[in-house]
Amino acid sequence: MNTAETIASIGENESLKRTISRLNASSSALVGPGDDSAVISAPDGRFVVTTDTLVEDHDFRLDWSSAYDLGWKAVASNIADVAAMGAVPTALVVAVTAPGHTQVSWLEAFADGLRAACERLAPGCGVVGGDLAASDQMVISVAAHGSLEGREPVLRSGAQVGDQIAVAGTLGRAAAGLTLLQSGNSDAVSAYDELVNLQRRPNPPIAAGVAAAVADATSMLDVSDGLARDAARIATASAVTLQLDPMQLQGFEAVLEEAAMAIGHDAKIWVLSGGEDHSLLATFPAGAAIPRAFKPIGVVVPQGPSPVMLGAQPLPESGWDSVRG
Amino acid sequence: MNTAETIASIGENESLKRTISRLNASSSALVGPGDDSAVISAPDGRFVVTTDTLVEDHDFRLDWSSAYDLGWKAVASNIADVAAMGAVPTALVVAVTAPGHTQVSWLEAFADGLRAACERLAPGCGVVGGDLAASDQMVISVAAHGSLEGREPVLRSGAQVGDQIAVAGTLGRAAAGLTLLQSGNSDAVSAYDELVNLQRRPNPPIAAGVAAAVADATSMLDVSDGLARDAARIATASAVTLQLDPMQLQGFEAVLEEAAMAIGHDAKIWVLSGGEDHSLLATFPAGAAIPRAFKPIGVVVPQGPSPVMLGAQPLPESGWDSVRG
Repeated sequence: MNTAETIASIGENESLKRTISRLNASSSALVGPGDDSAVISAPDGRFVVTTDTLVEDHDFRLDWSSAYDLGWKAVASNIADVAAMGAVPTALVVAVTAPGHTQVSWLEAFADGLRAACERLAPGCGVVGGDLAASDQMVISVAAHGSLEGREPVLRSGAQVGDQIAVAGTLGRAAAGLTLLQSGNSDAVSAYDELVNLQRRPNPPIAAGVAAAVADATSMLDVSDGLARDAARIATASAVTLQLDPMQLQGFEAVLEEAAMAIGHDAKIWVLSGGEDHSLLATFPAGAAIPRAFKPIGVVVPQGPSPVMLGAQPLPESGWDSVRG
Repeated sequence: MNTAETIASIGENESLKRTISRLNASSSALVGPGDDSAVISAPDGRFVVTTDTLVEDHDFRLDWSSAYDLGWKAVASNIADVAAMGAVPTALVVAVTAPGHTQVSWLEAFADGLRAACERLAPGCGVVGGDLAASDQMVISVAAHGSLEGREPVLRSGAQVGDQIAVAGTLGRAAAGLTLLQSGNSDAVSAYDELVNLQRRPNPPIAAGVAAAVADATSMLDVSDGLARDAARIATASAVTLQLDPMQLQGFEAVLEEAAMAIGHDAKIWVLSGGEDHSLLATFPAGAAIPRAFKPIGVVVPQGPSPVMLGAQPLPESGWDSVRG
């Protein structure tokens, strides 16, 4: 590998060829990368599709995230949206725009991150197509696909009064990692590298999406913009209020307390408003057994003045807006 | 409509809501926009998927293309890749990154262009999901999906010695339109606005893709980077040489001669190397009836020293590289 090679010096075709050669195949691909389109199996006659974008200096910083990290994160953030329907991720297409001076070795490490995330988080899922174009700023757009395996999709709109609210995965850890990086406190970054690493390489509980669907979840979404904001989305779509139990959130806060103290932050804010954990928030019928991956955090009540309540208090919709920040 | 509203002032959710309300529905969407993923019908148990990106100041200029034009072009360039497999376009996801000061009215006009192109070029196809994020530079990434309706996909790799080579759609017109815009000659731009408009709003022969598949096309792709470069892709994938007949290309040149003379250009270069017409280049078995939309332009011969010959001369792979330009 010649590290002086840039994507401009070897061109789109050769850059894509080198990248594709490092990827794992999708086990659902009937025709893989290299033609005008890929052809993907959809055994139950349907597929789910979602798209999400990462933008340099808005969603990531190249000095905080390696190419490998970004490949991983692009996969994780997209397949969490597939899992949130109760589907199994099958295939991704990845469009990258990058400055011409970007090193080919950067793109190769990015591909390694794509592959590692697929293999670790959603075995059988792989990249089936891509696009590479020149730009001033790096932008990574992914479309992710999945199979419902004959099940009905779990929508945001099905929560019923009396349902149990539960979450699979972490809350606030990715936000804690981001605050640590922003603090510039390198001692704290080292001490809590587990949080920083989760910000760089989220670990969404993909298999829990299917588990929730099998357990008759009535609604589900992935927590990408923070618990407060995403819980409000279920509440609004379902015309109910989600009443979160502060006691049941204490476990999520407790693991962040030490890091919060180290940099003078509030762990509760991370848990309630922090995005990018890509955990799954779901509702289950009252009395139903909740899958092991999920922890109960509240109950669905009739629509009140606020979409989300934290105990007796309305919870404002603070969180991340991808346009306004 | 308040034209002073920007996507930053109203945020991602409200911007997406306004945009989605202007779109046509996909007739294949079982669950449309608004949840974590859409759910799309795939009646024959497979779907095709492709992705393509348009980058500001690389693939388009905001002073040359309106928001409506860009919505149209984003659809046209992507569904041509679906048609090139012999598939019917069914569903799109669209990721837009744009500066926060972008007017909401711009985004609405962009949505109108998306809808118009779907309705005109591929009735039944529609946008089923999207993403909007802030960036310094505008980037439009689309993933397009289609149904093979039980047919085998038409790949690039199936051309056989003796096959007829044929093209559906225009050659060189989009490049002529681009050269006219670049010339800064406003009289010529007005006189040949048909070419400029085709550059802005390509008109790929989508239905011809299915027609080619039904007529047993042995290979096919969409001419996005110029005839010379794209013909070489079929030749390389099929291990043959594509021998183009200069006489059969004359009709494509003739309609461009007047515009070429007006700005001192060579119509032949547009026809051989001009991209973005998104026409379909296909090969058909010797003796087979070619669908009406296709015009014969040559014959497949055994692999020679050059992937593409123009009569007795090797045709160099000049054309567009999306990284190097």
